Amino acid sequence: MLDKKHIKAISKIVSTENIYHDRAHMIAYSYDATRTRYEPDAVVFPRDEKDVSEVLKYCNKHKISIVPRGAGSGFTGGALPKNGGIVLAFEKHMNKILEIDMENMVAVVQPGVINMNLQKAVEEVGLFYPPDPASEHYSTIGGNVSENAGGMRAAKYGITKDFVMALRAVLPNGDIIKSGKKTIKDVAGYNTTGILVGSEGTLAVITEITLKLLSKPKLDKTAMGIFPTVQDAMNAVFKTMASGVTPVAMEFLDNLTIRAVEEKFNKGLPKDAGAILITDVDGDLEVQIDTQLETIEKVFKENGCTEFKKANDKEEAKELWFARKNASQSITIYGSKKLNEDITVPRSMLPELLRRIDEVSKKYDVKVPCFGHTGDGNVHTNVMVDGSDPKQLEIGHKAIEEIFKITVELGGTLSGEHGIGLAKAPFMHLAFSEAEMELFRSIKKAFDPNNILNPGKMGL
Amino acid sequence: MLDKKHIKAISKIVSTENIYHDRAHMIAYSYDATRTRYEPDAVVFPRDEKDVSEVLKYCNKHKISIVPRGAGSGFTGGALPKNGGIVLAFEKHMNKILEIDMENMVAVVQPGVINMNLQKAVEEVGLFYPPDPASEHYSTIGGNVSENAGGMRAAKYGITKDFVMALRAVLPNGDIIKSGKKTIKDVAGYNTTGILVGSEGTLAVITEITLKLLSKPKLDKTAMGIFPTVQDAMNAVFKTMASGVTPVAMEFLDNLTIRAVEEKFNKGLPKDAGAILITDVDGDLEVQIDTQLETIEKVFKENGCTEFKKANDKEEAKELWFARKNASQSITIYGSKKLNEDITVPRSMLPELLRRIDEVSKKYDVKVPCFGHTGDGNVHTNVMVDGSDPKQLEIGHKAIEEIFKITVELGGTLSGEHGIGLAKAPFMHLAFSEAEMELFRSIKKAFDPNNILNPGKMGL
Repeated sequence: MLDKKHIKAISKIVSTENIYHDRAHMIAYSYDATRTRYEPDAVVFPRDEKDVSEVLKYCNKHKISIVPRGAGSGFTGGALPKNGGIVLAFEKHMNKILEIDMENMVAVVQPGVINMNLQKAVEEVGLFYPPDPASEHYSTIGGNVSENAGGMRAAKYGITKDFVMALRAVLPNGDIIKSGKKTIKDVAGYNTTGILVGSEGTLAVITEITLKLLSKPKLDKTAMGIFPTVQDAMNAVFKTMASGVTPVAMEFLDNLTIRAVEEKFNKGLPKDAGAILITDVDGDLEVQIDTQLETIEKVFKENGCTEFKKANDKEEAKELWFARKNASQSITIYGSKKLNEDITVPRSMLPELLRRIDEVSKKYDVKVPCFGHTGDGNVHTNVMVDGSDPKQLEIGHKAIEEIFKITVELGGTLSGEHGIGLAKAPFMHLAFSEAEMELFRSIKKAFDPNNILNPGKMGL
Repeated sequence: MLDKKHIKAISKIVSTENIYHDRAHMIAYSYDATRTRYEPDAVVFPRDEKDVSEVLKYCNKHKISIVPRGAGSGFTGGALPKNGGIVLAFEKHMNKILEIDMENMVAVVQPGVINMNLQKAVEEVGLFYPPDPASEHYSTIGGNVSENAGGMRAAKYGITKDFVMALRAVLPNGDIIKSGKKTIKDVAGYNTTGILVGSEGTLAVITEITLKLLSKPKLDKTAMGIFPTVQDAMNAVFKTMASGVTPVAMEFLDNLTIRAVEEKFNKGLPKDAGAILITDVDGDLEVQIDTQLETIEKVFKENGCTEFKKANDKEEAKELWFARKNASQSITIYGSKKLNEDITVPRSMLPELLRRIDEVSKKYDVKVPCFGHTGDGNVHTNVMVDGSDPKQLEIGHKAIEEIFKITVELGGTLSGEHGIGLAKAPFMHLAFSEAEMELFRSIKKAFDPNNILNPGKMGL
């Protein structure tokens, strides 16, 4: 519990209406998308960077934990105050798009800006911010940067880190730092931007983000391929990517996922198919799009694709995307509890990964529907169990651990886009040596010697 | 001076033929492209990562400085052993391309691989490694990563950091760490790859580099635009970049540079022109190239371009590039000593930057020919003085300092691609606050508590 004198002192900094410490609000800010709960002692809404700086300075002095929070939409508990303390929330004040600089093609935003609001604002002026996590309608840029969020378009455009040019941030001691510039090139001083992106709020509190924008491609088209086996589809994925075409998205659904969507929505999907691939291509010229789709069709068919459908308009494209967009909610037919992970392997390892997940599924007698962003090797793996049965849960967790081991063995990562947070912290030893963990702890200490920032996350 | 017992101990690790400590070799390894000289006490050629680890462990124990060195082609003294100690050179053994993985489109290389050798090897199999520093024929990938090297193609493809997917490195205590993966997405643990790139050999010794490759575009074309004033050209640059076209390169020469090349080579260049822009576009389809060049021609002409030439073949393209490729050696007609800097500003600030450099040139009565990679705001600024005249040198350095101040004021960086090293260390205070410098020192200490790795660089 936070002492009343601390509440009073912090109220004085941010003004009384910008701090909550009543029980109802503490419950409201106790969860994220993991559905685990940890109540904070107070929720603080800084009005500006100066507030952030003063709150941090105070908390650092009194060793009070601070947990920065965007929309609380994370899948790994990154924004949960495991040890209580203060949740720092940006939704109330620090939620503005400060600048869309058309001449340099960059946007400057505060951490609380919702991803889709930024996408819309820049598209209105012909520009483009590609990172599009599934949570784009509610997750914030601050959260996206802290977890290095990915999305559907990563295969072509990369992920959040590829768009962060500069940051302003506050260190635990209250010092305000700037890193990076509105320039592509900058080799002066350490690349602190590079280490802050994906650091899950454990090193500094990000207060301003400068993002690279692109020109919005004028055209895009969608196609779908149906494959007899998931192996065929995975071969088609990495061979397409290696063919010289760079699709914007290359998403897949396995047979279990296809059947779940079909059961729920009756869309006439091929229930016997081993897998479906859905792909988007873009460009400024019709011929560019057509050439890309021709290559994709050719590679797909060389790899067993039995049916290749091209969308003729936006409406048809939406239909082709329907199954993918509704995959996550549909697979709940297989169990009340979904243990979902976002493992990622080098693309060429996808066929082997899917084969071995199938083995794990059989060994533990659990259903493991898979779908996701295969264009970048990112597979959403869902171990489905009965959440009310502790034995089933235990089996599920064992299956997950085995899948993590396989992923690491195939040169992959525990997390492609969700981060480590609390949920994956127990598995860090599978991916990192003691020397690597020790280095992480040294880096943490260099930024946050008193360990007040999001303590207990990332296994640190 | 390094004690004989240390030489003996290190000889035992790497074997006698892989350590030099005679005077002649010490002189040979005492310089880089800055032409400043600092002799090491020994030069060590590790055979593999294990050698690196054992040498570092030994040196850490005995607090002996280690300076990693690629080709010694750096412009800021990054590879110079200012405090003596050991130069660790990779050219003899750790210079191999270990893998070109066509399925995942990545290359795995040792630090001593020469940039151009990698470019050629991947292009032979239809792939593409874009970063092309002017030193590409001799500089090494290890050096490129350590200085986060740029190049001509950065405007479209980005710089070295955008291609480094994973690293293996040895910490000063001898611990071997891996960071990153052969995957686009990876959010597990701190992004140590991000902070090691551009860290100028001060944090760890990089022993293996995994690089992202692209498909080699099938076609490219070159064009040139002639402008009455440098301001017109700078306006044309940033307006082209904002028009939706992304040229591979957008290079410029100012009037002084044009006249120097013309004086030296008699190529019929327009000696009265304020500036020349040279641009490359690429793509897989003829129509893509043509559409891009049409847009560029339009924007150029709207911004005062008096003549626009398109190359019809490789030979003509080479002719158009001639002036740019020979700019650096030609401007020596203005003075025996070239104080060259690689300042970078947001593109929209280019017209203002060039205007103010002109003011500085007049104020100090020195010639400051400028050329460079304007597509990404990177201007090679050359203050030309008589190197044998101490007074001229002093004036030159004052002019440089003033140009740095202007650059920072315009939101730019001291270094776009050369790094800080020794040469720019005195100017770090212009760009960074005491809090930022203190953070850099903390990061340095987290990796290298005994300060044995490349001490004295980056103003740390």
